[in-house]
Amino acid sequence: MVLEKVIASLDRLDAGARMHRMIADLYPICRSITGDGFRQSLQSLREQIPVEVHEVPTGTQVFDWTIPKEWNIRDAWVKNARGEKVIDFARSNLHVVNYSVPVRRKMPLAELREHLHTLPDRPDWIPYRTSYYKETWGFCLAHNQLANLPDGDYEVCIDSRLEDGALTYGAYYLAGRRRDEVLFSCHACHPSLCNDNLSGMALAAELARLLSDADLEYSYRFLFIPGAIGSITWLARNEDQAANICHGLVVACVGDAGKFHYKRSRRGDAEIDRAVVHALRHRGHDFEVRDFSPYGYDERQYCSPGFNLAVGSLTRTPHGTFPQYHTSADNLDFVTPEALAGSLAAYLSVIGILENNGRYLNLNPKCEPQLGKRGLYRALGGFADAGQLELAMLWVLNLSDGEHSLLEIAEQAGLAFHLIHQAAQALVDAHLLCLMNTADGSKGGNES
Amino acid sequence: MVLEKVIASLDRLDAGARMHRMIADLYPICRSITGDGFRQSLQSLREQIPVEVHEVPTGTQVFDWTIPKEWNIRDAWVKNARGEKVIDFARSNLHVVNYSVPVRRKMPLAELREHLHTLPDRPDWIPYRTSYYKETWGFCLAHNQLANLPDGDYEVCIDSRLEDGALTYGAYYLAGRRRDEVLFSCHACHPSLCNDNLSGMALAAELARLLSDADLEYSYRFLFIPGAIGSITWLARNEDQAANICHGLVVACVGDAGKFHYKRSRRGDAEIDRAVVHALRHRGHDFEVRDFSPYGYDERQYCSPGFNLAVGSLTRTPHGTFPQYHTSADNLDFVTPEALAGSLAAYLSVIGILENNGRYLNLNPKCEPQLGKRGLYRALGGFADAGQLELAMLWVLNLSDGEHSLLEIAEQAGLAFHLIHQAAQALVDAHLLCLMNTADGSKGGNES
Amino acid sequence: MVLEKVIASLDRLDAGARMHRMIADLYPICRSITGDGFRQSLQSLREQIPVEVHEVPTGTQVFDWTIPKEWNIRDAWVKNARGEKVIDFARSNLHVVNYSVPVRRKMPLAELREHLHTLPDRPDWIPYRTSYYKETWGFCLAHNQLANLPDGDYEVCIDSRLEDGALTYGAYYLAGRRRDEVLFSCHACHPSLCNDNLSGMALAAELARLLSDADLEYSYRFLFIPGAIGSITWLARNEDQAANICHGLVVACVGDAGKFHYKRSRRGDAEIDRAVVHALRHRGHDFEVRDFSPYGYDERQYCSPGFNLAVGSLTRTPHGTFPQYHTSADNLDFVTPEALAGSLAAYLSVIGILENNGRYLNLNPKCEPQLGKRGLYRALGGFADAGQLELAMLWVLNLSDGEHSLLEIAEQAGLAFHLIHQAAQALVDAHLLCLMNTADGSKGGNES
Repeated sequence: MVLEKVIASLDRLDAGARMHRMIADLYPICRSITGDGFRQSLQSLREQIPVEVHEVPTGTQVFDWTIPKEWNIRDAWVKNARGEKVIDFARSNLHVVNYSVPVRRKMPLAELREHLHTLPDRPDWIPYRTSYYKETWGFCLAHNQLANLPDGDYEVCIDSRLEDGALTYGAYYLAGRRRDEVLFSCHACHPSLCNDNLSGMALAAELARLLSDADLEYSYRFLFIPGAIGSITWLARNEDQAANICHGLVVACVGDAGKFHYKRSRRGDAEIDRAVVHALRHRGHDFEVRDFSPYGYDERQYCSPGFNLAVGSLTRTPHGTFPQYHTSADNLDFVTPEALAGSLAAYLSVIGILENNGRYLNLNPKCEPQLGKRGLYRALGGFADAGQLELAMLWVLNLSDGEHSLLEIAEQAGLAFHLIHQAAQALVDAHLLCLMNTADGSKGGNES
Repeated sequence: MVLEKVIASLDRLDAGARMHRMIADLYPICRSITGDGFRQSLQSLREQIPVEVHEVPTGTQVFDWTIPKEWNIRDAWVKNARGEKVIDFARSNLHVVNYSVPVRRKMPLAELREHLHTLPDRPDWIPYRTSYYKETWGFCLAHNQLANLPDGDYEVCIDSRLEDGALTYGAYYLAGRRRDEVLFSCHACHPSLCNDNLSGMALAAELARLLSDADLEYSYRFLFIPGAIGSITWLARNEDQAANICHGLVVACVGDAGKFHYKRSRRGDAEIDRAVVHALRHRGHDFEVRDFSPYGYDERQYCSPGFNLAVGSLTRTPHGTFPQYHTSADNLDFVTPEALAGSLAAYLSVIGILENNGRYLNLNPKCEPQLGKRGLYRALGGFADAGQLELAMLWVLNLSDGEHSLLEIAEQAGLAFHLIHQAAQALVDAHLLCLMNTADGSKGGNES
Repeated sequence: MVLEKVIASLDRLDAGARMHRMIADLYPICRSITGDGFRQSLQSLREQIPVEVHEVPTGTQVFDWTIPKEWNIRDAWVKNARGEKVIDFARSNLHVVNYSVPVRRKMPLAELREHLHTLPDRPDWIPYRTSYYKETWGFCLAHNQLANLPDGDYEVCIDSRLEDGALTYGAYYLAGRRRDEVLFSCHACHPSLCNDNLSGMALAAELARLLSDADLEYSYRFLFIPGAIGSITWLARNEDQAANICHGLVVACVGDAGKFHYKRSRRGDAEIDRAVVHALRHRGHDFEVRDFSPYGYDERQYCSPGFNLAVGSLTRTPHGTFPQYHTSADNLDFVTPEALAGSLAAYLSVIGILENNGRYLNLNPKCEPQLGKRGLYRALGGFADAGQLELAMLWVLNLSDGEHSLLEIAEQAGLAFHLIHQAAQALVDAHLLCLMNTADGSKGGNES
């Protein structure tokens, strides 16, 4: 099916509800950068799309890093002197510092305290903490709860295993007419945290499902990976593939009600950067664009100088800037079907631009062609302005000199890309314009 | 005569009155893109300057277009049941849709209505409508007048002819020392409409008359053409000539009291663009600069990608943005001698820059030369700042490294071009500076 | 000693007091562009640093200029009819127009007036006037004093000599590891004027003294010269040397309490321009940056098109923009130890940037290296942001692709240079980064 039809036939209410349901299904699972929770999550996604599951053994060298031991956890609790569980992993998997080594012993509160993490500023919320690369253990809890713990001895149990195993990640590849790829990457290693980043996983899965039905120019790659170590692993094992990535987005924090934020790729003015900004501008809502910085999500790896891929990140409220970030308050109430559906629509707009952003050649470059005799221009003259589509055609004709892509024309014209694209189609149908071909015979993209 | 003298000896009151008189003479004539009204208008201009008249036969192919049939009209009216003329071409030539085919018959108001055009928002004004490329007929009238027409039968007469003939245009060429040309183009096809564009015709004619007395560096070409089809025709028949056009302006809407608007050429930063902006900035009045867009006047054709000439458009209130535009209210009261004279002065400033915008070479580039011993710098030292001319000389010396034209120096210095030019002359006289020559031995322009 | 230690061990109170004392010592001397006052001033500076004294004979041709006669003055006064000195050089050397020819005669007030200079707007201040290149004589005095002079005859005496001699200037050269030079140039020709420019002389001398103790990458050249003719002379006699100047600052007006002003070099975005702006930005105080203009101090000569050196000027309130400029009010009260010390600190910050602004290469450019295993990254994860030094390391790694100097990285990161430099050092120590070498084996600067 033509992409435009896939987009037009999308039921936003439906899609929003479906993504929110995916999030609800994934929410209880205790994920980490390795382990069965991650595997179980990929299985859950496979109900939507046939994600391919990859396993990379512990100890494998990936650039400067080594695949760590695999972490799994069955249970964890702290019991007070009366044998009552005062902290219970079964109630929230955030209670355990992710990657905690096993422990089982008694200790006085004073000693236990050194292993307890709270948020004094948000005394009712449980923080999310990890210790992937240093062996330790700990519990996270609400500050108010800690304040109410009486002195005395406590029994501590973390029933976890840190053993040789594997790092797991999921990949889904959709072949288009071109080998050139568009990458959507999301981290899938966070436990019960909805916006960061179950929302990203759900949106990427839904996007993949929708595009499966479409007739596509580019090939599309979806990665569901543990943060940092996951993208490093994928890049180390797929250096050749990575060279095909022409455009990419890191998908995260797309379920909250905040306005969109786009973080540019390291290149700063890559086609993906301009496509996202154009799509957001023509949505008619407020949004914010930020320059690349080497802190954040997996764009840190994709944009490391040895790769320097054109990968940005399109989020709503960015990581670290909403109070619920990395706390138990980033829960199922914090993400909404409406916000998810709006984010999906924005991602689809970007794809609509990338798929259609050809460079065309005006076949009648000397003066304007006579549009009227082809039925493309109104017959009666003298009015103060032209119609929008007529104006779009004039722009396309004027700038289709081989130097400007449709997106660049849209930007210069201040018109929406879809209007410019529609004008180009009408002019192609009238034999006034032709698509410039790239070396591989496909639609001419912005970068070769 | 040196251009500066021509400019200095200009009597603005006189010039303004002369241009307004030209407009008044042309106002009653019913012009169209072809026909005797256009020819008669050129004859009227020939009282000022020896415009050369060109005729291009109907059916001639000009790029994608074909010269249409010639249109002429003798009379037109609508009579009511009592035989009274309720619409009368003799009272305003705007009453007839321009290029209406002949018609003579009776019809009820209901049928006639489909051929009547009004402006409901401006109920007292007659709109201007055309139908050059689709054969139809119609009348334009005040909306209030239409409201008062009683039902019943009306007799309709348009005594026009649409026959093989010719498209007429006027051209006036002034040879300067260089073959490089400056183009002034104005559309001359509008009937009783003063600002758009009898004002442009009058200003171009007055400018041509003044420059005829001047000793000129560039050659100057003035075109009086029907809109769109006229510039297309000229370009199609003069492709070789067009290559000589280095700078150009489309002259229109120069008679109203509004502030200046400059629409950049498609190139955006051509010398003409910078010259006009500089000239306007140093007039000390508010003005506005707009980027090129492919809608507007004949710059659409000059700036089509196959030509991409450095042609902008210097107007007062731009087309389509004043309510009187293309209505009977764009009349002799809407344009004033003062506004016309001010526009002429602005055009002359631009010409003054183009004519003198050479690139010079500092013959003493290592440290400043000693201006004082040449009488170019005051003897007593210690003051807080230099005089304006001294400062201008320092700027010219510092930037005359072969990379900067005088206009670029003026822009960087924030000084008026005429002061920078005066400084350059003084330094040339003192043998501290020399003009860089272009390949053809003439004054070095900004673009070669 | 490492430069950072020199800077860290600086006692600002001490340095400020020392510079103010230098100014106080120099204040009474009557300097001019030649003569014994200039020589005596250099002797005074030699108490701080071993300035080399150069003498260039009268009549020597230096580019377009000729070394003038040497001017010396013993005494000067105007006596009234009662033989009382009403104007007395002994009370202020500003009273005599600098370079006045000798005169000894009686004349009525009306005739004398033509030789008297005052400031009607500042009636209590004595102006500073010069006449280097036209032989004349004159006195400067407070306007109020002139108003009170009764008519009658006056006896005038200027006991000066204008004879063949020499132009004197001082130079101090500090050799660093590279032949590439940083220039600090100050004019030293003004008589009793503190901010313009005894402050510049004192700061340059103090800076030279401090750098003498430091282990330096660049070589440093300090010039104490008469304004205009001095830099012209130095450049004419040292054209080869001048080619080694990579960065430079004209030092003047650094003792008043105003905010910093930086005047860019003619190049506009040279490394010195970016270094100064960065240093000022990260001081946390308001400052102003101005583009180059060919009026001002000796940057006029260093930035003449035949040299076009990367020389800017870092001042507090610029010349000509404070009312005390070139008047007797630019005295010892107008400059303060605190302002001088603050200026010195700003100059040292700039030097700290230039000395350390290498280009480095990320030795692990594919994905981030694992900083944690090297103790460079905190073990516990999940926090909303990284520490400042961690962030600085990520920036250095991301942008050390051979295209960016540390200063460019600091600018892009919005972090202080010293933090970026500290991060680079840590990464070099961890073998994750290496300095790129320039052709001459030294630290890679920004321009080659």
